[in-house]
Amino acid sequence: MATLSVPAALPDVAEDVEQLHKAFSGWGTNEELIITILAHRNGYQRKLIREFYQETYGEDLLKTLDKELTKRDAFLANEATKKFTSSNWVLIEVACTRSSEDLFNARRAYHARYKKSIEEDVAQHTTGDFRKLLVALLTSFRYEGPEVNTHLAKSEAKILHEKISDKAYADDDLIRIIATRSTAQLSATLNTYNNEYGHAITKDLKEDPKDDYLKLLRATVKCLTCPEKYFEKLLRLAINKMGTDESALTRVVTTRAEVDMQRIKEEYYRRNSVPLDHAIAKDTRGDYEKMLIELVGSENA
Amino acid sequence: MATLSVPAALPDVAEDVEQLHKAFSGWGTNEELIITILAHRNGYQRKLIREFYQETYGEDLLKTLDKELTKRDAFLANEATKKFTSSNWVLIEVACTRSSEDLFNARRAYHARYKKSIEEDVAQHTTGDFRKLLVALLTSFRYEGPEVNTHLAKSEAKILHEKISDKAYADDDLIRIIATRSTAQLSATLNTYNNEYGHAITKDLKEDPKDDYLKLLRATVKCLTCPEKYFEKLLRLAINKMGTDESALTRVVTTRAEVDMQRIKEEYYRRNSVPLDHAIAKDTRGDYEKMLIELVGSENA
Repeated sequence: MATLSVPAALPDVAEDVEQLHKAFSGWGTNEELIITILAHRNGYQRKLIREFYQETYGEDLLKTLDKELTKRDAFLANEATKKFTSSNWVLIEVACTRSSEDLFNARRAYHARYKKSIEEDVAQHTTGDFRKLLVALLTSFRYEGPEVNTHLAKSEAKILHEKISDKAYADDDLIRIIATRSTAQLSATLNTYNNEYGHAITKDLKEDPKDDYLKLLRATVKCLTCPEKYFEKLLRLAINKMGTDESALTRVVTTRAEVDMQRIKEEYYRRNSVPLDHAIAKDTRGDYEKMLIELVGSENA
Repeated sequence: MATLSVPAALPDVAEDVEQLHKAFSGWGTNEELIITILAHRNGYQRKLIREFYQETYGEDLLKTLDKELTKRDAFLANEATKKFTSSNWVLIEVACTRSSEDLFNARRAYHARYKKSIEEDVAQHTTGDFRKLLVALLTSFRYEGPEVNTHLAKSEAKILHEKISDKAYADDDLIRIIATRSTAQLSATLNTYNNEYGHAITKDLKEDPKDDYLKLLRATVKCLTCPEKYFEKLLRLAINKMGTDESALTRVVTTRAEVDMQRIKEEYYRRNSVPLDHAIAKDTRGDYEKMLIELVGSENA
């Protein structure tokens, strides 16, 4: 699923390793440098870099990279709780599209960096229904196995349908089901919902298009059950926006490049009839464009 | 703080290691065997056992023991959600008297063993205020540093006092403060509460002695701010009970032996004017008595 393109030139491994190690000092400040180096090396070169990095610094480069990603999530989440950059969307993304271990590692990185917990900041800076949903999602450690209990799926589809019919969108049980069940179990429940009641739950959550909480709840369900559709829409809105929403564009491209970018690209093409890299190239320029295209992967490569 | 007594005899290290390894297979079933072996070895012997264990099985005995403890917490928490053994007290203990990493390791062990998350079971088997408090406590990953914000302590002491005056004991902000703040910060807040309003918060939470939720909330505050007092009381009630509450007695002794048993013993003596081991010896017998006394440590040793 990775989409980083690979160049032919063979740079000096020792120099790459030194540059990478420098880029890892500090808090995500040299992300572009890391991307530039790793996006321009092929599998064999990366292997050499990894070995040399281990020999030189006694650390596994992949683990260091992983730590960088969770540090970035901690940073994104912290920004999201601040007054002028607050974004419940970013919190939903970190909570619902990372693996359970990665989400936990972001919480651990948050301790190290901010000397407090994600949940105390989020709980302090939000109120009411938003707080109830966000804190439950961010503190969850979802089971990730494939097991599905069809009996449970049926009974919880019924609960969800009752609550939504009553417009009780922040009901304790509704939030409990969405915030704690494994994605396999939740998908089974939502399929049952669709089969039994004739609509996808996201349709039934469209009651009031202006209600921000309902929008967030729909985004939550999407992030959990079909993240590529969620990210496609985010990219579409970011690119189509007057002036381009660079922060959303960068965030999606950098956090999904090594995860599910291929599926997001397919979804983007299906929905917009334009390849994602063409759309990005049309809307951005210079080094920024180059970096994004490297991460997304060009259709002509 | 450890209280395990050390015998003079020198048993065979290889045999110990084999017995220990056997005891670790399965789910906490041979806890007594583990205790019997390790409680009867001195520091030097344990060092030999640890080295031999590493050589033979390629695992660190201490890490294996730690894993056992978090597996036991997962087991205790699971039992606590079941119909006939349900106990919100055990959930509070696991949530509020373990380190943040140990609590998280228990959640990870829960996945491995039960193929679901602690929080989905607890949220499913509880309702209302109990659920609100328990799920928040169990999913928290508290920051554990010593930093205290006195301004925050003052403002949150005020919030707590307002909510308690209004008898809003399950208020969102009250639960947020208790469930998410570091114990250092929470202690500062509760000290401020005491200074500003003239009572300890636990006194103000005594409104209705029959209210089970209020009892649980008091236990939460005690577990977080002075666990040795909480465990002293639990031991006192378990020992004084007609017929002795063996499950509580075993749970406290086995889970605190290597943590804070010395302080619990001091607290017990201060409150009851009888050494804990004497009280246990009077109330139990045979191998069970022997095991408990080994873990608690005899006053005459």
